[in-house]
Amino acid sequence: MTYFKLITLLSLYILVACAPNARQEQTTQKDYTQFVKPLVGTLGEGNTYPGAQVPFGMVQLSPDTEKWQWGAASGYEYSDSTIYGFSMTHLHGTGIPDMGDILFMPTVGQTHIRPGKKDFSEPGYLSKFSHENETAEVGYYSVVLDDYNIKTELTSTNRAGMMRYTFPASDSAHVVLDLSHVLRFDVVWSNVQVINETTIAGMHQVKGWAKERYVYFTAEFSRPFDAARIFSGGKEVKYDSYKTYRFRSSKEAAGPDIQLVADYQTSEAEQLSVKVGISPISTANAMKNLKAEMPDWDFEKYVSVSKNLWNKELAKFEVEGTQNQKETFYTAAYHAFMSPTTYFDVDRNYRGLDQNIHECKDFDNYTVFSLWDTYRATHPLFCLTQADRNANMINAMLAHYQQSPDKLLPIWSFWNNETWCMIGYHAVPVIVDAYFKGVQGVDWELAYEACVNSATHPEYDATAEYEQLGYVPYDLENESVSKTLEYAYDDYCIARFAKALGEEADYKRFSKRALAYKNLFDKEIGWMRPKDSKGQWMADFDTHHFEHLGAFTEGTTWQYTWTVPHDVKGLVELYGSKETMANKLDSVFAYSSGKDYKGVDDIHGRIGEYWHGNEPSHHVTHLYAYVGQPWKTQQLTRHIIDTQYGNEPGSLCGNDDCGQMSAWYIFNAMGFYPVCPGSDEYVITSPAIPSVTMTLSNGNKLVIDTENYSDKNVYVQSVMINGVEWNKSWFSFNDIKEGGHIHFVLGDTPNKEWASAEEHYPPSMSTSKL
Amino acid sequence: MTYFKLITLLSLYILVACAPNARQEQTTQKDYTQFVKPLVGTLGEGNTYPGAQVPFGMVQLSPDTEKWQWGAASGYEYSDSTIYGFSMTHLHGTGIPDMGDILFMPTVGQTHIRPGKKDFSEPGYLSKFSHENETAEVGYYSVVLDDYNIKTELTSTNRAGMMRYTFPASDSAHVVLDLSHVLRFDVVWSNVQVINETTIAGMHQVKGWAKERYVYFTAEFSRPFDAARIFSGGKEVKYDSYKTYRFRSSKEAAGPDIQLVADYQTSEAEQLSVKVGISPISTANAMKNLKAEMPDWDFEKYVSVSKNLWNKELAKFEVEGTQNQKETFYTAAYHAFMSPTTYFDVDRNYRGLDQNIHECKDFDNYTVFSLWDTYRATHPLFCLTQADRNANMINAMLAHYQQSPDKLLPIWSFWNNETWCMIGYHAVPVIVDAYFKGVQGVDWELAYEACVNSATHPEYDATAEYEQLGYVPYDLENESVSKTLEYAYDDYCIARFAKALGEEADYKRFSKRALAYKNLFDKEIGWMRPKDSKGQWMADFDTHHFEHLGAFTEGTTWQYTWTVPHDVKGLVELYGSKETMANKLDSVFAYSSGKDYKGVDDIHGRIGEYWHGNEPSHHVTHLYAYVGQPWKTQQLTRHIIDTQYGNEPGSLCGNDDCGQMSAWYIFNAMGFYPVCPGSDEYVITSPAIPSVTMTLSNGNKLVIDTENYSDKNVYVQSVMINGVEWNKSWFSFNDIKEGGHIHFVLGDTPNKEWASAEEHYPPSMSTSKL
Repeated sequence: MTYFKLITLLSLYILVACAPNARQEQTTQKDYTQFVKPLVGTLGEGNTYPGAQVPFGMVQLSPDTEKWQWGAASGYEYSDSTIYGFSMTHLHGTGIPDMGDILFMPTVGQTHIRPGKKDFSEPGYLSKFSHENETAEVGYYSVVLDDYNIKTELTSTNRAGMMRYTFPASDSAHVVLDLSHVLRFDVVWSNVQVINETTIAGMHQVKGWAKERYVYFTAEFSRPFDAARIFSGGKEVKYDSYKTYRFRSSKEAAGPDIQLVADYQTSEAEQLSVKVGISPISTANAMKNLKAEMPDWDFEKYVSVSKNLWNKELAKFEVEGTQNQKETFYTAAYHAFMSPTTYFDVDRNYRGLDQNIHECKDFDNYTVFSLWDTYRATHPLFCLTQADRNANMINAMLAHYQQSPDKLLPIWSFWNNETWCMIGYHAVPVIVDAYFKGVQGVDWELAYEACVNSATHPEYDATAEYEQLGYVPYDLENESVSKTLEYAYDDYCIARFAKALGEEADYKRFSKRALAYKNLFDKEIGWMRPKDSKGQWMADFDTHHFEHLGAFTEGTTWQYTWTVPHDVKGLVELYGSKETMANKLDSVFAYSSGKDYKGVDDIHGRIGEYWHGNEPSHHVTHLYAYVGQPWKTQQLTRHIIDTQYGNEPGSLCGNDDCGQMSAWYIFNAMGFYPVCPGSDEYVITSPAIPSVTMTLSNGNKLVIDTENYSDKNVYVQSVMINGVEWNKSWFSFNDIKEGGHIHFVLGDTPNKEWASAEEHYPPSMSTSKL
Repeated sequence: MTYFKLITLLSLYILVACAPNARQEQTTQKDYTQFVKPLVGTLGEGNTYPGAQVPFGMVQLSPDTEKWQWGAASGYEYSDSTIYGFSMTHLHGTGIPDMGDILFMPTVGQTHIRPGKKDFSEPGYLSKFSHENETAEVGYYSVVLDDYNIKTELTSTNRAGMMRYTFPASDSAHVVLDLSHVLRFDVVWSNVQVINETTIAGMHQVKGWAKERYVYFTAEFSRPFDAARIFSGGKEVKYDSYKTYRFRSSKEAAGPDIQLVADYQTSEAEQLSVKVGISPISTANAMKNLKAEMPDWDFEKYVSVSKNLWNKELAKFEVEGTQNQKETFYTAAYHAFMSPTTYFDVDRNYRGLDQNIHECKDFDNYTVFSLWDTYRATHPLFCLTQADRNANMINAMLAHYQQSPDKLLPIWSFWNNETWCMIGYHAVPVIVDAYFKGVQGVDWELAYEACVNSATHPEYDATAEYEQLGYVPYDLENESVSKTLEYAYDDYCIARFAKALGEEADYKRFSKRALAYKNLFDKEIGWMRPKDSKGQWMADFDTHHFEHLGAFTEGTTWQYTWTVPHDVKGLVELYGSKETMANKLDSVFAYSSGKDYKGVDDIHGRIGEYWHGNEPSHHVTHLYAYVGQPWKTQQLTRHIIDTQYGNEPGSLCGNDDCGQMSAWYIFNAMGFYPVCPGSDEYVITSPAIPSVTMTLSNGNKLVIDTENYSDKNVYVQSVMINGVEWNKSWFSFNDIKEGGHIHFVLGDTPNKEWASAEEHYPPSMSTSKL
C-alpha cells in the first residue's frame, strides 16, 4: 500500500465516521428503488411475488397466477400466462403455499364467480396476461388483463392496498371478490356485508398451512356500484318469498363459499379504484387501518410513499458497481426487508397465538418467522441494519412464547399460528445473537427463560431423549441427525447466554449439550451418521440417501455433516486434521451423486453436493477459513454469486425463504458472513461488488471497498480494517459496530499466505471458549 | 259492598300505596323460589329446560337428553331416559333447536369421545338417568348418571356455570368436553387449549339456526387433572415423530370435531367441580367473566346467589292461592324472566350483528328476541315489572338496528345473528308500547327512525307491494294474509308513535297502512282471505287449509282473521254488527275441523279452532270484550288456565316461546291482558288466583284481589279499582301505573250487565282515535 493510498483511506474513514448526518441526507435523496427488480425469483423456485408491499408490511398486494401448485407458494409463477386476480397477502419465498387472502378481480361481460380453468376448458373470471404489458416496481405493479382489456395497477401501505382498474367502455363491468380463494388450502368460513353503496366488509377463515387463520377486510370503491350481488355456494343471495321461504338479506352472507360482484357501467378508459384495509382482528379494525393509512384516493401518492419508505431502507446500502450488480444487490435488500411482516393494527392490537386479542403496547409486533432459515443470515443482517426492528421481532417472539400453551418460542409461525414446520428451536440463536450484538429493548431475563424452556420441552421433538443419550436416536425420532446437530448449535447459544447472565448450572448443562454433534460423527466414514437408541450406527448407511429414513432434513449427510457452526475446531478434531477435513470439504464441491432425489426438486444451485438452494449448505463454503484455505471460500462465494444470483426472474436457485437467500447474498457480496450467529464472528470472503457503504442501525457507516475489483479477481490479496492491516480470516462484531472501513485488495490468484496461518483462523467456539 | 268492606279495602290501598318499602322488605324475606318447578314444560312441546339460569342470564347450564330432534329444541325432553351431558346455553321454549354449546360429561371406565346412540346400539359417553334421581330447583339441578354412578349438580351465575360431580372410586374417571356437540346443527369450527393442569379454554363456531355464532369458554377444574387428552377427527392429538411427521402440540387443537378428555383417579364419593365462563368474544373474556362471577369453589354459595336473584324477581308477585296455583304462577314468572338473555361480558363488550366487538357503555345488552311471540305479553309485562330491563332490551334492539346492513330492527335474533324467523316487524310494538308506558332511557328519535326504516325496507317481505296495493298479494309473497294483518298492526303502532313525535306525514302514511287489514276481509264469508296482485280473491279458498298455499303463518284464517288488535271496532264494522262478529268468534271456539295439520304437531291447547299453543290466538278470547260479551272472555281464560297450565312437566300446551305463553298466563291469572300493545288498554278478565300483589317497576304495588274466588266462580260480578266501582271491560296503563288496588267480585254465573254496554267496551284504536 502506498502512503497516498493510506492517507486517502484514512481521510475517507474520518469523513464517514464523523459526518454521518450529512452523508445520510445526501444518500437518501438518491433513488435506490430504481435498481429493485421485484420479478427476481418469480421464475422457478424463488417463490417471490412481484406485487406491492412496503418494508415489512402487513399487506402484500400481488397478482395470483397459480392457486393449487405446491411449487408456486407465493401465488405468482413467471411462466404462467393467466391471472386469477389480486390478493392482499402473500408469503415471501417459502416452500409451502398459504395466504392469497381477499382476492379481487375486475372483469367485463358475463358474470363469473368461479375462476375457471387456466386452460380455459372451463370459463371463469381468470384472464390471460402478458409480461409485455406488466410492470413491477417498488410499491407499484401493473398488468393488462387481456381477456377484459382492463389495466390493473396496485400499490399498498402497511395495512392497506389500492387497486386502480382502467376499464373499457362496458355496460357490464364488474369487480369480483372471491372469498373462497386462498392459495392451495381451504377457506372454512367467510362472511361479507354490503355496508353502503361504496363499502363492503367481511372476513375469511383459512385452514391452511396455518391451521386457523382469520383475515378481515374492509374495502371502499371510488364510486358507488350500481349493484352488489352476493353469491353463496354458487347461488345469488337474494330473498324470494317462495324459494327461500323466509327473508334473506341481499346485503350479507356467511359460509365457506362466498363471492361478491360489484356491478358498474363504465365509459372508455374509466378508472375505478378499490382500496382495502385488512386486519387479523375485525372488519372494524380493517376500516381503522384503511382510514388511518389510505384516507384518500391519490394512488400516485401511495406509490410515492411506498417508494420513499423503501428508499429509506435501501439507502442503508450505497453500492458501487455495474447496473447488474446494483440491481442484484438492491433487489436482494428488498427481498431481505419484506419479512417478518407487521402484525398489529393501527390501534396496536393483534390476534395472538391463543386467538385472543392482545395489545402490543411496548413493541411493534411482527409475524412470519421462518426461523430455520432466517436465523442464519437474515436476523444477523437485521442486527447490523435493523437493530430496533430486530428487538421488536424478538419481543414478538416472546409474546408468542407467552401465549403458547406449550411455552415454546416460535418454530415457524405466521399470523396467529404455529405451523411446527422444520426443526430445532432457532428463535434461540436469533435472540442470543441480538443479545451479544447489543440490541436494546428486550426483556433478556424473559428471553432467557424462553430459550431454556424451548430447549427442554418434555414432548418436543425428542429433546428429552437427546439430552439423555447425547443425541437423537433415529429409531425413536424422525430427522434425528439434523435435529441433534441443530439442537447442539442452539444449545451452544443458550450456554453462551447462560454464562453471560451468570446462570452457571445452565451454562454447564447446555455446554455439554452443545457437544452432542460429536456423538453422531462416524470417524470411520467421516460423516455424520444416524445412531439408534442402543448406540448402534445405522446399518447400510447410504450417504446419498435423501432424508435417510427420516434422519436428515431436506438433505443428506453431505450437506448436514457441516452443521457444527459453533465448534468447527471440534469438528476438525473429529476429522483428525485440518487437511482431512479440507479434503472432505473439497469432495462436497467436487463430487456429485448425480441423483435427482425425490422431494428436492425445489433445491437447485448445486455445486457437487453443495446445495445452495437450501439453507443447510449456507455456511459450508466459509468453513475453509477454519482449515487454513480461505481462498476456497473466496472463490466459491464469488462463484455462487456469479452463477446463482442476478436481476432476472429466474435468478434465485431456491426458495428465498423469507429473505435468507437474499441476506446470504448481501453478506457475501459485502465480503463477510456470520457463520455462527450467537457468536460475534464474521468470516471474511471476497466482496462481489466493488464498493458498498452500509449504514448501521446506530447511524454509523461501514465502508467496504476494493482495489482491483474485476470478475476474475475473486481472491483476496490483503485486507485493511480501519487503516490496520488485517491478516485474520475473520473479524468480530466489535470490530465494526461503530462503523469503519474495510478495504480489500483483490487479485486473480489466491494469496495463500493471507489468513491461512492457524492463529488467523476464526476462534470457533469450542466449549472451553464459551 | 258493605261499608265495612269499603273501609277495609281503602285501608289496604293506603297501606300498600304508602308503605312500599316496609312491604318489600317483608316480602323479599320469603322464599318464592320454592314454588318454581323448572321441569314444567319439559314434557311435550313446551321446550323448556330444567337447568340452572339466573334471571335473564347468559348461561343456561342444563342437561341435554336430545340432540337431533326438531321437537326437543331446548335439548331436554322429559320422556327421554338418557343424557348426553351438560351444556352451557339453551333457548327457552323456542320451536327451533340451537345452542347446547360447550358440553361436559363426566364418565368412568373406557374413554368415549362420541356420545353413542340413545338405544345403546353404539356405545358412547351418554348415560341413562331416572327422574327419581333428578332434582330441578331454581338455580340448582342434579341428576345421577346411572351408567357411571356419578351425581352431577349444576348451578350458574350470569355468565358462568359450575358443575359438581360426585364420582365413585375409579382409576379411570374422566370429564369429557365435546366441542362438536350442538343441538341439531353443525359445528363448523372449534379449538381448545390446555392452559395449565387445571385450566382449559376454547371455542366453537356454530352454523345453526343462527348462521354464524361464536361461543368461547374458559373452564377451571377444582383439582389438577392427571392428564388432558385432546381428540380431533376421532384421533388423539399427539406428536409421533413418524406418524405425524412434524411436531404436534398435545395441548391444543383446532377443527370441526374436537373433544378433550380430562383424566382422574377418584376415590369413593370424591367431588370434583368444573366451573366454566362463556363469552361471545374470546376465551380471555370468558376467563374475565369466570373470575368476576365465580371466583371460588363454593357451589352452595352460587346456588344461594341464584336463588336470591330469582327471589328478587319472583317477589314482584305476592300470590295467594293453593300450592298448585302458586307453583303454576311462580313457574310462569320464572319462565317469563329467562329471556331475553344477557349478552355482554363483564367488560361490557359483546359481539355485534356485524361480527365486530362493541361496547355497551350506556345500556345492558340483551339478545334472544323472539319478537313475533314476545311483543304480545312478555314485553308488556316487562313494561310493568321490568321497565329498566325493557329499556335495555330496546337499546339492544337499536344497537342491532345500527349494526344491521339492512338497517332493520331485529326480527328473531340471538347472539350476533338475525335468523329472519317469523314475520312482521314486531320490535315496533315493543318499542311503541314502552314509549307510551313511560319507559325511560331510550333514544326515542333513533327508535322512531328504526321503526320507520324497518317498516319500509324496499326488499323486506313485500312491504313495498303492501304499501302500494294496500295488502300483500298472495301470488307474489308467502304468508300474505298474516303479513298484511301484522304489518297493519305494527303500522298502527308507528302511526301512534309518529303522532306523538309530531311526524304528521308519517302519521298519515302509517294510519292508512294500519287499515290494510280491511282489504283482505271477505265480507261474503266473514274471513280474512288471500288476494292476488290483480285484486282477485283466491279461488277455492279452504278456511281450514293450514298455511294455505303459504298465505297464513302457522295457522288458518280461523286463527288469523282476528289479528286486528288495534282496530277491533273496525273489524266489527266489517262484520256488520257486534252480534255477527260474536257469533263468528263463538264458532271459533265451538267448531273443530278435526284436522291434524301437517306442521302443527307442536301446537296443542286447541279449543275448537282456537289454538292456545301458538301465539296468533293469544288475544282472541279477549275480543269478546269488544262485542259486549265479556263473560265469555272470563270463562275462556279461566278455562284455558285450568286446562292448559299447571305445575307438571306436561303443563305447557305449546312452545313457551321465550316466555310468551307464561306471560299470557301471568296477565290472565291476574285478570287482565294487553290485547293491543302500543295502546295503553288492558282488557279485564276473571282472575285465576284469589289474590296477587304486583310490585311495579317504580316500586309501587298493584293489589289484585277477589271475593268469592273458587274454581266454579269464573264470572266477574263487579270490579272496583282504587275504591271506585268499575264498569268498563278495560282499564288503561294510567289507571294502574302508580299501583293501586283492583278488587274483583266473582260468581258462578255471568253478570251480563257488567261491562257489556257499548260505552264500556275498550275504545279500540279505530284510526280516527290514533
